[in-house]
Amino acid sequence: MREEKWVFFFGKGRAEGDASMRDLLGGKGANLHEMTRLGIPVPPGFTISTQACVYYLEKEGWPPGLENQVKEHMTRLEEVMGRGFGHKNHPLLVSVRSGARVSMPGMMDTILNLGLNDESVEGLALVTDNPRFAYDSYRRLLQMFGEVVRGIPHQRFEHQLEEVKRAGGLTQDVELTAQDLSEVIERYKEVFQREGASFPQEPWEQLREAIEAVFRSWNNERARTYRRIHDIPDHWGTAVNIQAMVFGNLGEDSGTGVCFTRNPATGEKGLFGEFLPNAQGEDVVAGIRTPLSISGLCEWMPQVYQELVDLAQLLERHYRDMQDMEFTIERGKLYILQTRSGKRTVRAAIRIAVEMVEEGIIDRATALLRVDPEQLRQILHPDIDPSAVYCVIAQGLPASPGAASGKAVFSAQEAEEWAARGEKVILVRQETSPEDIGGMDAAQGILTARGGITSHAAVVARGMGKCCVVGCDALIINEEEGYFLAEGVRINRGEIITLNGSTGEVIQGEVPLVEADPGPYFNRLMEWADSVRTLKVRANVDTPENAVLARKLGAEGIGLCRTEHMFFEKDRINVVREMILAETTQERKKALTQLLPMQKEDFKGIFRAMEGLPVTIRLLDPPLHEFLPKTLQEIEAFSRERGIPLEKVQEKVTRLHEFNPMLGLRGCRLGILFPEIYQMQVRAIFEAACELVKEGVDVRPEVMVPLVAHVKEMRILRDLIEKEALAVMKEQGVKVGYLIGTMIELPRAALTADEIAQEAEFFSFGTNDLTQTTLGISRDDAAKFLPQYVEMGIYSKNPFSCLEEEGVGQLIETGVVKGRNTRHNIKLGICGEHGGDPTSIRFCHRMGLDYVSCSPFRIPTARLAAAQARVREDLMKWEEEAA
Amino acid sequence: MREEKWVFFFGKGRAEGDASMRDLLGGKGANLHEMTRLGIPVPPGFTISTQACVYYLEKEGWPPGLENQVKEHMTRLEEVMGRGFGHKNHPLLVSVRSGARVSMPGMMDTILNLGLNDESVEGLALVTDNPRFAYDSYRRLLQMFGEVVRGIPHQRFEHQLEEVKRAGGLTQDVELTAQDLSEVIERYKEVFQREGASFPQEPWEQLREAIEAVFRSWNNERARTYRRIHDIPDHWGTAVNIQAMVFGNLGEDSGTGVCFTRNPATGEKGLFGEFLPNAQGEDVVAGIRTPLSISGLCEWMPQVYQELVDLAQLLERHYRDMQDMEFTIERGKLYILQTRSGKRTVRAAIRIAVEMVEEGIIDRATALLRVDPEQLRQILHPDIDPSAVYCVIAQGLPASPGAASGKAVFSAQEAEEWAARGEKVILVRQETSPEDIGGMDAAQGILTARGGITSHAAVVARGMGKCCVVGCDALIINEEEGYFLAEGVRINRGEIITLNGSTGEVIQGEVPLVEADPGPYFNRLMEWADSVRTLKVRANVDTPENAVLARKLGAEGIGLCRTEHMFFEKDRINVVREMILAETTQERKKALTQLLPMQKEDFKGIFRAMEGLPVTIRLLDPPLHEFLPKTLQEIEAFSRERGIPLEKVQEKVTRLHEFNPMLGLRGCRLGILFPEIYQMQVRAIFEAACELVKEGVDVRPEVMVPLVAHVKEMRILRDLIEKEALAVMKEQGVKVGYLIGTMIELPRAALTADEIAQEAEFFSFGTNDLTQTTLGISRDDAAKFLPQYVEMGIYSKNPFSCLEEEGVGQLIETGVVKGRNTRHNIKLGICGEHGGDPTSIRFCHRMGLDYVSCSPFRIPTARLAAAQARVREDLMKWEEEAA
Repeated sequence: MREEKWVFFFGKGRAEGDASMRDLLGGKGANLHEMTRLGIPVPPGFTISTQACVYYLEKEGWPPGLENQVKEHMTRLEEVMGRGFGHKNHPLLVSVRSGARVSMPGMMDTILNLGLNDESVEGLALVTDNPRFAYDSYRRLLQMFGEVVRGIPHQRFEHQLEEVKRAGGLTQDVELTAQDLSEVIERYKEVFQREGASFPQEPWEQLREAIEAVFRSWNNERARTYRRIHDIPDHWGTAVNIQAMVFGNLGEDSGTGVCFTRNPATGEKGLFGEFLPNAQGEDVVAGIRTPLSISGLCEWMPQVYQELVDLAQLLERHYRDMQDMEFTIERGKLYILQTRSGKRTVRAAIRIAVEMVEEGIIDRATALLRVDPEQLRQILHPDIDPSAVYCVIAQGLPASPGAASGKAVFSAQEAEEWAARGEKVILVRQETSPEDIGGMDAAQGILTARGGITSHAAVVARGMGKCCVVGCDALIINEEEGYFLAEGVRINRGEIITLNGSTGEVIQGEVPLVEADPGPYFNRLMEWADSVRTLKVRANVDTPENAVLARKLGAEGIGLCRTEHMFFEKDRINVVREMILAETTQERKKALTQLLPMQKEDFKGIFRAMEGLPVTIRLLDPPLHEFLPKTLQEIEAFSRERGIPLEKVQEKVTRLHEFNPMLGLRGCRLGILFPEIYQMQVRAIFEAACELVKEGVDVRPEVMVPLVAHVKEMRILRDLIEKEALAVMKEQGVKVGYLIGTMIELPRAALTADEIAQEAEFFSFGTNDLTQTTLGISRDDAAKFLPQYVEMGIYSKNPFSCLEEEGVGQLIETGVVKGRNTRHNIKLGICGEHGGDPTSIRFCHRMGLDYVSCSPFRIPTARLAAAQARVREDLMKWEEEAA
Repeated sequence: MREEKWVFFFGKGRAEGDASMRDLLGGKGANLHEMTRLGIPVPPGFTISTQACVYYLEKEGWPPGLENQVKEHMTRLEEVMGRGFGHKNHPLLVSVRSGARVSMPGMMDTILNLGLNDESVEGLALVTDNPRFAYDSYRRLLQMFGEVVRGIPHQRFEHQLEEVKRAGGLTQDVELTAQDLSEVIERYKEVFQREGASFPQEPWEQLREAIEAVFRSWNNERARTYRRIHDIPDHWGTAVNIQAMVFGNLGEDSGTGVCFTRNPATGEKGLFGEFLPNAQGEDVVAGIRTPLSISGLCEWMPQVYQELVDLAQLLERHYRDMQDMEFTIERGKLYILQTRSGKRTVRAAIRIAVEMVEEGIIDRATALLRVDPEQLRQILHPDIDPSAVYCVIAQGLPASPGAASGKAVFSAQEAEEWAARGEKVILVRQETSPEDIGGMDAAQGILTARGGITSHAAVVARGMGKCCVVGCDALIINEEEGYFLAEGVRINRGEIITLNGSTGEVIQGEVPLVEADPGPYFNRLMEWADSVRTLKVRANVDTPENAVLARKLGAEGIGLCRTEHMFFEKDRINVVREMILAETTQERKKALTQLLPMQKEDFKGIFRAMEGLPVTIRLLDPPLHEFLPKTLQEIEAFSRERGIPLEKVQEKVTRLHEFNPMLGLRGCRLGILFPEIYQMQVRAIFEAACELVKEGVDVRPEVMVPLVAHVKEMRILRDLIEKEALAVMKEQGVKVGYLIGTMIELPRAALTADEIAQEAEFFSFGTNDLTQTTLGISRDDAAKFLPQYVEMGIYSKNPFSCLEEEGVGQLIETGVVKGRNTRHNIKLGICGEHGGDPTSIRFCHRMGLDYVSCSPFRIPTARLAAAQARVREDLMKWEEEAA
């Protein structure tokens, strides 16, 4: 019987494996083989297969033949490298790395410099003419071997290193001399002794034990837990990669560097990078010598430079993407240690993608996939200058993107007053309330200590397109005295702070910003996106100004116009409150009559801005107590102003209090209990529409009922809406085409979508609330445990940012299927926060929705994500057809 | 072509229709035909089919032949009755009634005495020798015809009647003389004139218009709305029943009465009822003459009495149930006007059911269906004496059944002090909190102004089996000064009130109560129930005492033991608070160590009481802030007592505040963030179990993880539980069989039950929370709109009392199917409030669950309901097989 092949060689342009052998060679191994095949000069080596690992763990011993195969391949490696494993003068050193099918934290990572011992370290010192390097390499081997193979705690070694540094009055590792390192080596050996462990001087013994340690690390507790959580089968096992080490510090014909195939900041074509002659990769990172620009290499070693240029082109064409390469020149011979797709700014990503299409390297579909839609907002908002250095004093939730600097103020009134005299201000509040609208509008940015990414402050700020950081728990804010404390730093009223709404950072002082400027490459890419995507993109918008902005950013209608935000405006909120405090329907109607013309004017502005496009207006949704004054002062002020007895206001506030307002008297429940509220809103919509139709404007209202759980709610309210709409159109003598539909935002609505579709011409999935109820998580309270949940991998992402597909998605699918079953042409969309999230948009595309709706500055993101979803779908179809 | 048959005759022992012809003759019509066929002497008449109505409404005219058929049948009726329709001396009077397939409010009900006019009223006066009766009959005809056929508002007629009464100084209708009524008739005619309407003197014209009015009433707005909400098709139409009127006041050989075939209060066999000679049914109701006992009839008209006895037996045997009959004797001839199953007390229902089985009238299965499980609690708790008269001053929610009287006290301390000196007290609170436990225990009953049927007060009271009324909104309670106001009545500290926890009534003063005594018939019935049912019944119980009680009431294990209730006890709550306030895991563990022995003792008591039966223990579930002191006083007291700085307590309370605690940091989220809490609880469970096993006790713990949404939560906690359980068993050197499972109480859990079942050996559907999240309704806030929703028919019942099957039930079904798919022998149960609701239990049986779990006093209800579910299922199977 032939013995099984456990070991696979790569080197000198030939490899026994390739990229397709991921299961057997692990991800890292398969890539090393692939690069070698391409003719890329990677340091040679060999891979022990995952099957060997599985055998070892099952049978608790080496598989038959493995030892011989390792020896044979090491011999081959020695030949290729011209050095001997364990040779005292010219030692061949190797690295040993684990590598499973998928990258997996918790497993053994790396042992470097394996093959060194007390004897060969001296040989290495001689041959490199660099004793410091040789001793440092040996010291690292000792430490890594001790930790990984012998399980000696990390601190034992670190402690000794610190001791030596302290003795020498040193603070940095790089300051250690060869002699110091020699001392460290001795101390490390004592650590081994004290721990009752040995460090094998015999390189073969080192290798044997390192390989076994990698095998065993597959089953250590952290790795097992990780697999259990991520559903990775235990029987996969890990491969082991053994690769020759090369050195760039063997003299003046050696060196090391990193380079990009295009400029990662701007996207401009051409080799971009830096290198250091006679140096190791580590030296570049440590920054003790200033690296030369890559063009310096051209002068110094023109052939090597040309080889690098050729390899860069080869790699770019092969991987069809801009590459970030690490290289080492060992005695005139170029090695590519690593190549990977290069990280780049979004600006560069766009330019590279567009230019690569022009160069014929990639097609448009691929170009569309090359830009992270999530990052587009960086070029739509002012951003912190990437080169700026600044001091972050607190971290909150990134609620509305962009950056802004201004003087800290602690009340809406202050914000308005200071802004009126030309000051730039940042409004800092415990949390915002409807009264603060004016101040929020006047401020450059908003910072709150409480609330989640869908709190009042966050929602309003996104609507305004204004930078906002919320839920910054660490802040201790004293609004009365006008200061806040953050991690010991005190910021007084009038001191400048800067917010980064894209990251949630709160920064002391002013920071230079760069203005938004998407540029011509962006426009080209967006055109391509629009021509590909099938999913329409609408905007969540509540004001005429934002409707104009949204249209400019590419909105194809409004998917969610929240009428309640109109109620919050300064001159209206008190009328709204009178409406709520009304004791009789008559009184309530009186207040509603005052609101009618205000709402109508808003609707007219919005309809006009969206001429020819659909506008979905949601009837009143939030619990009424949200509109009432909250603090005693606010209550007193309101009582005084409107001449309503204090006790009456207080009693109503108490009476409207809810334990779980999310699940309380809100949404269509308001419309059913107080039909006159919805009647007023419907009247405002249709009076606005009729008046515009008379002016010749093409108006397309879609009236949306929130929080429906039962078809009967929808039936009752549909009757109400139709009746009122008809009455208005009759009065005005004009006909307006319109739709009536509902949010699907409760599990019961999705589960009974077949019935609800009898009464609804469109569904808009309200994924914020649907996520809250399906998962049983209140967004506003989630900060107490959701971050830990995501960290532990229970949910892979925050389900309020990225749609949770298995549960919430299952309900959406039920809603889509059942809805279409009843009404085949039902219009389907999504209007939660997820409407602007690329992964969620991909899901929406897969579900066959008609549109997504998101806040204005998210629209380009959604357009690109929708195009990507379509491209990915096509790719999958091709793959299926090919298979 | 033969003309369609629209009219169907019944009378003289023969009928053209029968009970099966409900669709054509309507419910009421089909029953009249059936009774006639049985030989029951019902007043004869005829039915116009629903098809005639449909034709009339569609074609807007009478169907061809209907008029002739009506005339023919009227002639037949005249012959049978020996009177003439419109005859001036011996007028045949008829009633006209609508009757659709199902009973439907909103449609026209009844016109009586049709056929009278100015002339024949005199004939009737003569022939009955009762002018007052004749005029009153005519006056009623005028009014009913005016209202129903002519649409004249009710008040117009009532106003005239009042005028005449006022003029005569009368207060009651019965005081009106013949002359007065004659005056009323004249005034009624003027009403017709003023309204521009006519009253047809021609009886045929009366009949024609009355029939059309019934037809049209099918389409009036109230009827249409009702159909729309209840999904009744518009094309059904209504039938019209025309029936001869008979009179018991035509002399000394006439009379009228009502009787039951058995005693409706006790169930004793034998005719029971009363009658009045020479009188009309109305006279019995009006109470102007004292009716005679039914035995009086035996002396007065022995033959008629014997006929009635025979008919009673016939009807009881035919309908196989105790009957409530209305009869009239017209000139020696007995007519049965109506028979229906008689209403009875639950005590009577049980006895009748059991005795009818013994008499061979019904089988055991039918007997089981004859008792309303819901009413069983009436005989398990003290109840208000049915004969008592009392003054209800407020109405709250019936949170825990039974009745109790006592002196009102307004704090837990007062309750304990007063009870200690032998006073019976009722604890009246705004809402209760954990501190009140002692006072609640000391009180006879609990009354709160806030909170729903699952508030703290309600849950604790049910656990204690103590009468409780909650959410009594109308109360204005002043706890400090010690009084409350209810609808203007002021109750001071120490004044006696009575609560009815089964109805929610709050009563001023003391009311006589009857003690609980289920009796021998009850035990027989429950034996039958237990032998039939397949669904097991467990108890929701948190204390050893209640476990004993539950077992006595028939519990077959514990389905839900809420460990947090143990935390609320006086001597423990402060330790719990210290645990919550702990800044480090170390500090928290210290507090937990104090709690461990306490929990262990509880578990031992419960395990012992439930020896040999499964005990499901739920790990900590509620948000931690529920345990913290709430008011400033409580906070100060706690801070003082335990020497913890006030600010620290306050800060923690603020920090733990949640916007929607229902959806916040609770359930297994606590166990994941603070594993040491669950570790302590698991340790307490297994130390208790091991110690008992050593004593030879058969212990069967089932550890239940609450609020799981994702299989990964379950995986992490399953690992934790197993590890701790194993550790304890190893320490103790004992093995205990146990299960680990979870609540399914979030939509996501039900939707991914296939995955969760990988880690759970049982599911317990937590339908309280599942209803809250599926429907998006917070129980605690639902009182603001849910009553109106139920009234409007949006939900047919309160979904927190009776499981909402379409949405919540759909999720349970998904959970059952997916759960069994993964683990075919997974144990399935339900432990929400619905576990004790008969309709919900039927659903659970249909879903194939293994058990339901409910509070102890609900157990007999659940046992009977489970038996009924099984019986109904068998019936359906037989029907299917027969078909």
